[in-house]
Amino acid sequence: MTTIVGAALRTRGASSRLSTILASSSTIRCPPTSPSCRFFSKSSSKAMRFVQYRTGATGARQLLGVLSEDGSKVSDISERYGGDLITLIRAEPSLEEVKATASKVTPVAIGDVELVAPVTNPQKILCVGLNYSGHCEEQNKPIPKEPMFFSKYATTIVGPYDDVIAHRISDQIDWEVELAVIIGKKAKSVSKANAMEHVFGYTVAQDISARDWQKQRNGGQFLIGKSMDTFCPLGPAVVHKSLVADPHALSIKCSVNGVEKQNGSTGELIFRIDDIIQRVTESITLLPGDVILTGTPAGVGMHRKPAEFLKPGDVIDSEIEKIGKIKNKVVADA
Amino acid sequence: MTTIVGAALRTRGASSRLSTILASSSTIRCPPTSPSCRFFSKSSSKAMRFVQYRTGATGARQLLGVLSEDGSKVSDISERYGGDLITLIRAEPSLEEVKATASKVTPVAIGDVELVAPVTNPQKILCVGLNYSGHCEEQNKPIPKEPMFFSKYATTIVGPYDDVIAHRISDQIDWEVELAVIIGKKAKSVSKANAMEHVFGYTVAQDISARDWQKQRNGGQFLIGKSMDTFCPLGPAVVHKSLVADPHALSIKCSVNGVEKQNGSTGELIFRIDDIIQRVTESITLLPGDVILTGTPAGVGMHRKPAEFLKPGDVIDSEIEKIGKIKNKVVADA
Repeated sequence: MTTIVGAALRTRGASSRLSTILASSSTIRCPPTSPSCRFFSKSSSKAMRFVQYRTGATGARQLLGVLSEDGSKVSDISERYGGDLITLIRAEPSLEEVKATASKVTPVAIGDVELVAPVTNPQKILCVGLNYSGHCEEQNKPIPKEPMFFSKYATTIVGPYDDVIAHRISDQIDWEVELAVIIGKKAKSVSKANAMEHVFGYTVAQDISARDWQKQRNGGQFLIGKSMDTFCPLGPAVVHKSLVADPHALSIKCSVNGVEKQNGSTGELIFRIDDIIQRVTESITLLPGDVILTGTPAGVGMHRKPAEFLKPGDVIDSEIEKIGKIKNKVVADA
Repeated sequence: MTTIVGAALRTRGASSRLSTILASSSTIRCPPTSPSCRFFSKSSSKAMRFVQYRTGATGARQLLGVLSEDGSKVSDISERYGGDLITLIRAEPSLEEVKATASKVTPVAIGDVELVAPVTNPQKILCVGLNYSGHCEEQNKPIPKEPMFFSKYATTIVGPYDDVIAHRISDQIDWEVELAVIIGKKAKSVSKANAMEHVFGYTVAQDISARDWQKQRNGGQFLIGKSMDTFCPLGPAVVHKSLVADPHALSIKCSVNGVEKQNGSTGELIFRIDDIIQRVTESITLLPGDVILTGTPAGVGMHRKPAEFLKPGDVIDSEIEKIGKIKNKVVADA
């Protein structure tokens, strides 16, 4: 059993992006040094949560780490598995082996590292549209009989506390908190009964969308509106599936500038994770590290009355029970 | 100046896919050992054409090679640049350096290697819809005022002589020969004037499409209809841009079972390569090795009267002047 309390977040140096967020926004409720502003979920002794990060000592090089039970420390397992979670997933080590590896290193405080996205450069980001009944209702669309899939490019991925760019070619940038599924094993023609064996874990995602480009431009194809740089914050950790007894019973929330906008449950999913994997793999091979964004609950900006869109300075908080929280600031296009 | 004469193709062993094609199809005009059945374009002394391949000696390991001027031999440059073209592109060596490297190894006959796609696992495949006037006319659509972009997943990529699967969930599988552009340098916010500096080279592509899934299923989003496994044959070589004086003046053709279906010119492109790069990079970063499929000329199966679709046993020949030819057989879903 896990509860969301997580780890205090502290970043290196005044120039870091999160420091900037915290310094410039009056809407963030807790300072990063406060124990009440923790971003990871506290887990039991089965803890297996993976992060990718950098440190002052290692510079630009990306490291792979495992979080401590209370989320306050990270143990570097890069030497054994490389600095990349997808490399570890492909190698399919047992959790016992990973734990033994992590136990041999001296952990560092999470506040002393800079987290990047826990998965970077997956071959696919597969997204499901209209997958929560409330999100169908708010746009007066019937519950779909089959899922609608679209994609985002991996250049959209940014870290859990990174900035989202308000691209100048759009003035309708919107939020969508989503449960992200990380694929663990190559999957082709997988039955629904066996589908969950191909899942590695879960993380929190924002499927940021430029609604004008998604809906009115580009001939009705979602690609550009969904794939602008920085449009997929992910994190803070990939939580191994062994820690999530039922991924279809998690509270999922999003607030903007501290005001709650979305508050649903993954229990509302119209097409569940096993169903999605079965359907996609009829014709498409999923690979280790591929990311599936499972859809968003009601409350997106486009369908509010009046419609609301993101602007530079806005802060988006996204949270999923047992998985964690991410916090992203919207910034002007440079 | 180059002309299409290319290199004889021979594959290892009776079980190879191309051998199967050649043995089972009466529509293929020339046997693989005939000098008139050559797949590469013959190039001048400026030759710089890259292939990825395997050999009997190296087993499953992928090698990177440079073709000889007449396309009959390949020089392995994997030791210096790794067995992957994208790794070479990222390293940005000069052509002189690559040539010097290639000149130091003993080339092997092209017939003794098994070619794979010349680019594998790019971060993006970006496709342009409705980009030839004839292809707009055949479906009674106006010339678009702005390009329509969609994507294919990299799991669609197969080699120049590999099979295309007639996925059982579709009965409307169609051909689209396309000029593929390979990105050479990271590109963001690139002007039209500077766009071509970010191109590495070109290859031949087939943008195979399941029309039922593209048009009637998946909520109108093209992704599934365009992204089924094996739906992007590429090759045979990536031809460096220095060999292609004008990529907008190339004959482009496709035949099925020896019957010509498409015969156009890249001069018909509505949105040219520089325009595409400028528009996409307003909001999306292109990376070295990213693949842009620039659209297809008139003559696809869906818009023929009556409509024609591919079935197991069909052989698709795709050819672009100065770039090369690929040949792919359609096979049943296993």
